[in-house]
Amino acid sequence: MTGDHPYCAAVDWGTTSFRLWLLDRGGAVLAERRGDEGMTTARERGFAAVLESRLAGLKAPAGLPVVVCGMAGSKQGWREAPYLDAPARLGDVPAGAIRVRDGTRDVRILPGIAQRDPARPDVMRGEETQLLGAFGGSTGARLACLPGTHSKWVRIENGAVAAFATFMTGELFAVLARHSVLAHSLGAAPDADPEAPAFRDAARSSRAAPEGLTAALFAVRAGGLLGLHDPADAASRLSGTLIGAELAGASSLCGQPSAATLIASGRLKALYEGALAACGVEAETLDADDAARRGLFAAARRFWPLEPEDPAP
Amino acid sequence: MTGDHPYCAAVDWGTTSFRLWLLDRGGAVLAERRGDEGMTTARERGFAAVLESRLAGLKAPAGLPVVVCGMAGSKQGWREAPYLDAPARLGDVPAGAIRVRDGTRDVRILPGIAQRDPARPDVMRGEETQLLGAFGGSTGARLACLPGTHSKWVRIENGAVAAFATFMTGELFAVLARHSVLAHSLGAAPDADPEAPAFRDAARSSRAAPEGLTAALFAVRAGGLLGLHDPADAASRLSGTLIGAELAGASSLCGQPSAATLIASGRLKALYEGALAACGVEAETLDADDAARRGLFAAARRFWPLEPEDPAP
Repeated sequence: MTGDHPYCAAVDWGTTSFRLWLLDRGGAVLAERRGDEGMTTARERGFAAVLESRLAGLKAPAGLPVVVCGMAGSKQGWREAPYLDAPARLGDVPAGAIRVRDGTRDVRILPGIAQRDPARPDVMRGEETQLLGAFGGSTGARLACLPGTHSKWVRIENGAVAAFATFMTGELFAVLARHSVLAHSLGAAPDADPEAPAFRDAARSSRAAPEGLTAALFAVRAGGLLGLHDPADAASRLSGTLIGAELAGASSLCGQPSAATLIASGRLKALYEGALAACGVEAETLDADDAARRGLFAAARRFWPLEPEDPAP
Repeated sequence: MTGDHPYCAAVDWGTTSFRLWLLDRGGAVLAERRGDEGMTTARERGFAAVLESRLAGLKAPAGLPVVVCGMAGSKQGWREAPYLDAPARLGDVPAGAIRVRDGTRDVRILPGIAQRDPARPDVMRGEETQLLGAFGGSTGARLACLPGTHSKWVRIENGAVAAFATFMTGELFAVLARHSVLAHSLGAAPDADPEAPAFRDAARSSRAAPEGLTAALFAVRAGGLLGLHDPADAASRLSGTLIGAELAGASSLCGQPSAATLIASGRLKALYEGALAACGVEAETLDADDAARRGLFAAARRFWPLEPEDPAP
């Protein structure tokens, strides 16, 4: 039986977001909270204080253990959980966790993964837990895409992160839309529309000719100025152009296995599904929140094994 | 004889800068002023007021005619000088000028050039005058690079702008250095060093694999975080990466004729000379200010022909 009693709390603690689930012994969600207590807030108020306040809000028992992934484990976070080095087996992520004492509570923070190649240095924190949730027990080779501010493409081989690459797609969109000459073009309609032909055309063109990326960005401005493009499409063109270039880079840096998996939620899910379809890349989609929660639960099972008389379902 | 009496004033009026020369009948510089009265200042104080104040500072005669290039001719400028359409003969730029009445003074504003191709919309304002100064009377095919906030690559064929592409290189460097996660990496040393091996390596790598641009940008951050790259090199890496991608894009969009000409001054001249040399692209360099002044003078000679009894040298 799984019962109504929480077995652990699972926390995905990112740069700008906080997500908490109370899970039962089978990994089912008993309660959930989302907040905006990212790194800045947590550093000001204290990580333990934010966590305890959120747990109290869900009436979590005093001794309930907590497993955490994400930027809370960075040098600027609660406490640093040193990176595992790629290639890294996803099954080894829990063993790399560090333990934090929060009163009598047992809190574990999962490590990120570093790629210490001087030609392609890279880091992830949080995505390794989504990958553990998605592929922890899988065999074979896969290519996973985890879109975001810093979008990751990861080559998985036999349950290990073989190599990965981070693209600044989301952050480039944000800084160009706010701080560059493109702000004039995006003023009226700042959100990309994954259904717009302009979005899909831009993704296709950019993937086919990624060497022209920084010219294609200026063309978003010039096309509007000259009345050649609908001003309402500017954000879609910008987004499609950036994502198309990311797809080209991912093929080059991470290869193209037979199956690609998109791990995403919400708007990013729709944008990347649209861009992948426009570019003829077949992909299955997993929900990013589900993947993180499953990864955290898999780690929790390693930290706090169930009693023999209380087997997991 | 050229004499000491000014023949005209020539003004390069950009988004953030104002440059004024008093020229004699031979095009020689009698006096010069530089200021920061770009578009914002000029819109607030009035274009005529800024110009008259600067002319008075040089004791320019009341009736001295003035030729202007740059953003002063944009829709948001003094008065719009409609674009010529590419392909556009450089010799036709003066005929596209508009005339502004500033009291009794004769002021002409030169037009920009537009590329009205929906697949590659593009615009220039100011560069056409540098190109007129550099190549107005030339034949044959050339590729010109005019670096800047919005860097231009232009294919010149028999004295005409055949095609061009604008790369957001300078603006990308600025917004990423100030507003992205790379700000943490560039904090200590925000200027690129064209002599640094990291700059040249980044230019070469990025030109060879421009599809990885947005990943290479993140690698500037990750390389520092992991201690694989010297933090002092971050700005050089960022700059080299962006310029290398521009070189790759220019080859693809504008072709590679036998002779490439860099039209640049100051820091940008050093950076682009370094990047071009690192990538094995042969280039001769012309001073950008000289080219603008020569182009303005060539236009002035068309507006205000010299008296027959007073021939040009």
